[in-house]
Amino acid sequence: MKKILIVGGVAGGATTAARLRRLDENAKIVMFERGEYISFANCGLPYYIGGVIPERDSLLVQTVEGMSDRFNMDIRNFSEVISIDKEGKKVTVKDVKTGKTYEESYDVLVLSPGANPIKPPIKGLEEATNVFTLRNIPDTDSIKKYVDENKPQESVVIGGGFIGIEMAENLVHKGVKVTLVEMADQVMAPFDSEMASILHTHLKDKGVNLILSDGVSHFENKGAKVVLNSGTEINTDLTILSIGVKPENELAKSANLALGERGHIKVDKNMMTSDPNIYAIGDAVETVDYIFGSPAAVPLAWPANRQGRIVADRICGIDSKYSGTLGTSVAKVFDLTAASTGHNEKALQRMGINNYKKIHIHPGSHAGYYPGAFPISLKLIFEVPSGKILGAQGIGYDGVEKRIDVLATAIKGNLSVRDITDLELSYAPPYSSAKDPVNMAGYVASNILDGLVDVIYYNEIDELISNGGVLIDVRDAMEIELGAIDGHINIPLNELRDRIDEIPKDKDIYVTCQVGLRGYIASRILAQHGIKSKNLDGGYKTYSQVYG
Amino acid sequence: MKKILIVGGVAGGATTAARLRRLDENAKIVMFERGEYISFANCGLPYYIGGVIPERDSLLVQTVEGMSDRFNMDIRNFSEVISIDKEGKKVTVKDVKTGKTYEESYDVLVLSPGANPIKPPIKGLEEATNVFTLRNIPDTDSIKKYVDENKPQESVVIGGGFIGIEMAENLVHKGVKVTLVEMADQVMAPFDSEMASILHTHLKDKGVNLILSDGVSHFENKGAKVVLNSGTEINTDLTILSIGVKPENELAKSANLALGERGHIKVDKNMMTSDPNIYAIGDAVETVDYIFGSPAAVPLAWPANRQGRIVADRICGIDSKYSGTLGTSVAKVFDLTAASTGHNEKALQRMGINNYKKIHIHPGSHAGYYPGAFPISLKLIFEVPSGKILGAQGIGYDGVEKRIDVLATAIKGNLSVRDITDLELSYAPPYSSAKDPVNMAGYVASNILDGLVDVIYYNEIDELISNGGVLIDVRDAMEIELGAIDGHINIPLNELRDRIDEIPKDKDIYVTCQVGLRGYIASRILAQHGIKSKNLDGGYKTYSQVYG
Ligand SMILES: Cc1cc2nc3c(=O)[nH]c(=O)nc-3n(C[C@H](O)[C@H](O)[C@H](O)COP(=O)(O)OP(=O)(O)OC[C@H]3O[C@@H](n4cnc5c(N)ncnc54)[C@H](O)[C@@H]3O)c2cc1C
Ligand SMILES: Cc1cc2nc3c(=O)[nH]c(=O)nc-3n(C[C@H](O)[C@H](O)[C@H](O)COP(=O)(O)OP(=O)(O)OC[C@H]3O[C@@H](n4cnc5c(N)ncnc54)[C@H](O)[C@@H]3O)c2cc1C
Ligand SMILES: CC(C)(COP(=O)(O)OP(=O)(O)OC[C@H]1O[C@@H](n2cnc3c(N)ncnc32)[C@H](O)[C@@H]1OP(=O)(O)O)[C@@H](O)C(=O)NCCC(=O)NCCS
Ligand SMILES: CC(C)(COP(=O)(O)OP(=O)(O)OC[C@H]1O[C@@H](n2cnc3c(N)ncnc32)[C@H](O)[C@@H]1OP(=O)(O)O)[C@@H](O)C(=O)NCCC(=O)NCCS
Repeated sequence: MKKILIVGGVAGGATTAARLRRLDENAKIVMFERGEYISFANCGLPYYIGGVIPERDSLLVQTVEGMSDRFNMDIRNFSEVISIDKEGKKVTVKDVKTGKTYEESYDVLVLSPGANPIKPPIKGLEEATNVFTLRNIPDTDSIKKYVDENKPQESVVIGGGFIGIEMAENLVHKGVKVTLVEMADQVMAPFDSEMASILHTHLKDKGVNLILSDGVSHFENKGAKVVLNSGTEINTDLTILSIGVKPENELAKSANLALGERGHIKVDKNMMTSDPNIYAIGDAVETVDYIFGSPAAVPLAWPANRQGRIVADRICGIDSKYSGTLGTSVAKVFDLTAASTGHNEKALQRMGINNYKKIHIHPGSHAGYYPGAFPISLKLIFEVPSGKILGAQGIGYDGVEKRIDVLATAIKGNLSVRDITDLELSYAPPYSSAKDPVNMAGYVASNILDGLVDVIYYNEIDELISNGGVLIDVRDAMEIELGAIDGHINIPLNELRDRIDEIPKDKDIYVTCQVGLRGYIASRILAQHGIKSKNLDGGYKTYSQVYG
Repeated sequence: MKKILIVGGVAGGATTAARLRRLDENAKIVMFERGEYISFANCGLPYYIGGVIPERDSLLVQTVEGMSDRFNMDIRNFSEVISIDKEGKKVTVKDVKTGKTYEESYDVLVLSPGANPIKPPIKGLEEATNVFTLRNIPDTDSIKKYVDENKPQESVVIGGGFIGIEMAENLVHKGVKVTLVEMADQVMAPFDSEMASILHTHLKDKGVNLILSDGVSHFENKGAKVVLNSGTEINTDLTILSIGVKPENELAKSANLALGERGHIKVDKNMMTSDPNIYAIGDAVETVDYIFGSPAAVPLAWPANRQGRIVADRICGIDSKYSGTLGTSVAKVFDLTAASTGHNEKALQRMGINNYKKIHIHPGSHAGYYPGAFPISLKLIFEVPSGKILGAQGIGYDGVEKRIDVLATAIKGNLSVRDITDLELSYAPPYSSAKDPVNMAGYVASNILDGLVDVIYYNEIDELISNGGVLIDVRDAMEIELGAIDGHINIPLNELRDRIDEIPKDKDIYVTCQVGLRGYIASRILAQHGIKSKNLDGGYKTYSQVYG
């Protein structure tokens, strides 16, 4: 009879335990959880605080009792594993309530300790009585209680990652005014800055006071005042600190398990640590990037759940392997959905990867003539010349995560941008168009690969114009009145063939329109009249999402 | 300068023309359309009749003038191509308004004539003044006018395909009572009967008088009475005949182009007909099935659009190929979404294919604790032992077409049911679960392939019980009160280990629960206590969707 100890009883740990029992009715399974609760819905916590999820109970996906009963396992909450004896194959456990410790031996040890909110040593933080982080049920209870009892008017959310933004949304939903402070020049790191711009506009529209490129210097007055690096002072009744998480690696570290550069527990494709009797999964580990095979640590629920099942399989002799993380994610940002998969440009640049191109398109979520269609801003990044998909980002009101999921699937299926033109996706007017946005992204990208059109980007055009380039905006005059790029010449697309002589022969020519489609057609017309031009990728829409 | 004639100016034809012009500014392009309108939104017609799409203009994606201007092409509406001279490479065109004919020569001819609603020679149909078919704008105008002027109270829709169902929905939306008559024992042919059951229940809930397994015998009283084969008589103010479409093949036939068994124009992967100067696309053609390579004709907009672009490429020397049709489709059925891809069981049976298994699951559209989650009824069919995905069907209120699109993409990426456990799909509570329904389908299917569980199906259990098998329902007593399969024994899952002695050793044992999950766990427990059992796939939910 194998004895398996699991450290951590939530996403990764509980999944491992459940699968283990299904595979092996006889294994002795002991699951340790430091806190009171196991198997809770971490991802629902902000929505319970905001009242969107009304029942606290619904956050408890499983209880100690329920899970013990169903899976016949020994679940010990309020039990912290405080050290590992690798050679002796045993751990020391502290009963959190009594402080007493005891040892427990194992055949296999599984670590799923998760990640902790980062709490830097900011001056005044210790003394502050209104600053919270959010990870678990007790955190949630504290914040909820604080909100209900103190009825805060003003709040500050520090950190514009998905938890910060979800908290901002839920506080606004509760009627609390929110200032969101983010150190970087954009929120939501999975997105490139021009995509994040769309979110910035929306956050402001929703009444969030958005402060970018600024960080917290210190707290004053027991937290009632937040002072930023810039000197800006903000009065606040409630502050949420959500600047990221760091792996809970103390156990692993003290047991001398190999750690990655950023402190995550290193594991191989079997989720095995540097010790063959110890596996690790979830937020605490470093696996590999699915696309490049480089080290990757993505603290999200899908990997934790997936890895939990894989570890259980391996322990029971089934040859499952973790193929690496794509980093697919989605967040609700008030009325918008922001989803992404694979790499963004910032990441590629950091890795020194330059053999890629990107496109921005704005197709409707479904057929324009059927009510309720909204444009999706979709960015696709692909390797040249192979056309391999490196990443995708989508933001919009509807149908966004569908397209990102399709693209994530395409990446796992090894499909290139050419191949996605061939994806036969479901179409009826309420759901899509006869050429789905994903197909369209494939077409637009393939046209670049095939040399049918050359493009320039939103952040290049102003300089190109000031250097003497000529920008032809092929939209109709009425559209241009609503906004256009300074210095353009207007020749509506349908007049282009007749007015081709107006185009200077000795200048660099650029074309643009609303989203890029008509610019592309214009560029094709010009090319075949012997005029080389480049189309502004994403058109005025992408340009104005950033500068508008 | 190449001269290209295109027959048919809507989905396939107009797409070909547009891409042709983008590729070749100098080609002479002539597009013939028999009707007044080109490039209209066929798929939106039912919704315009229902008033869901308020503006008639929005159905006209392009106009003759608009498209001629933009693409510098010769578009001739009211112009029917009535014969092809393959050897002379010319066609005869009839001006529909004047009846005059003329010839037009070509280098390349593209046929995209579409498909016509089937109008069988039913007695009384000719005389009927209130029976309509729906294909184009004039049909739409007629129906709309009839509805607005005659304010019908009662209507009959003949044929439960997607157009029939869309018309039923839109007539109900208009306040018209609908009787839907379908010859088969189910609506919506892409679905297997147990899935269609869900639609039947919903249609009835929405007030549709659903008559299955019955067809129209004849019309009486100028159409005011519909008499069915069974003898049933229905009074009707308005009848929509939507029993399917047949390819418009007269031109191709008279030109001796090779036709398929069901009369479609045969084409190869290049969309080339048996004549190398003639291409054909869209509803009129027979291509190949993506999965099996057998002949396939699927009259939907995606193939027409895709093929149009491919033909333009080929004409311009770009080596694009059509890889075959999966038949991915989606329809809104009142509040439900019904989507599918690949093959259903009926089709596999027809093809004599038996080396497959299937599963039915009912995962939530998103995390259950976040408001607005609804179960998706998802059926996945896969080859054994390879695990290759053969088809999928989904029905539910939300998130259905997303999962079908992901599965359609998985098929094109050659991913097996094992591989889809590894799809890293986007997760946040409003959008999915940490194990997406597609992952879950992969898990459930893999467990069968791996021999972890054996299953029986909703349509087998009654007989197995009456033959002496024992069905253990492992739900809680409270759930069972709401409905259960006759003859079951109730042992709640959490008591199973303790009550294992109650299970007869000499009988065939079956287990069930609400959706299959707890039955699976029970089956695993039993197996490891030496008791072989089979789990009822889809649980009581699938069973009751059919028999409930
Ligand atoms: C507010 C919030 C919202 C989120 N939203 C999303 C989302 O929308 N989508 C998404 O994909 N992900 C989301 N996540 C992330 C997701 O919850 C995590 O990726 C996932 O829970 C990680 O699983 P895990 O098992 O690694 O860690 P956890 O689920 O955190 O579980 C680790 C457990 O181990 C316990 N533990 C640690 N050390 C010890 C020890 N030494 N002894 C005993 N017990 C120990 C901890 O107390 C903890 O309960 C969110 C997280 C938070 C906090
Ligand atoms: C009411 C309705 C709803 C639909 N909904 C959906 C949906 O939701 N999803 C989906 O995928 N598909 C849907 N479709 C199907 C989709 O519209 C067709 O698959 C698609 O239009 C086929 O394109 P095509 O070019 O082959 O034919 P068509 O678009 O029908 O175009 C063919 C044109 O050729 C013309 N023509 C024919 N013969 C000649 C000739 N000899 N000379 C000159 N002109 C000729 C015809 O007048 C016709 O206008 C729907 C169809 C209808 C009618
Ligand atoms: C609750 C929890 C313990 C459940 O773990 P689990 O049992 O592995 O997961 P599920 O309840 O989703 O069930 C999945 C299993 O049921 C099977 N299953 C699901 N539906 C089924 C059906 N209709 N028929 C048969 N089997 C089914 C799956 O195959 C899978 O079994 P397998 O792993 O042996 O293949 C774990 O997911 C958890 O703790 N979740 C909360 C924490 C968390 O994930 N937080 C982050 C997100 S908020
Ligand atoms: C209107 C119609 C003529 C348009 O054909 P089309 O020009 O090929 O299609 P679209 O307008 O969608 O544009 C697609 C083209 O624009 C390009 N494009 C789209 N968005 C772009 C962007 N943002 N930037 C650059 N190029 C873009 C695509 O690459 C594609 O060009 P390509 O084929 O040369 O690669 C044709 O689709 C039609 O008749 N539709 C109505 C009929 C119909 O389809 N009915 C059935 C469904 S209701």
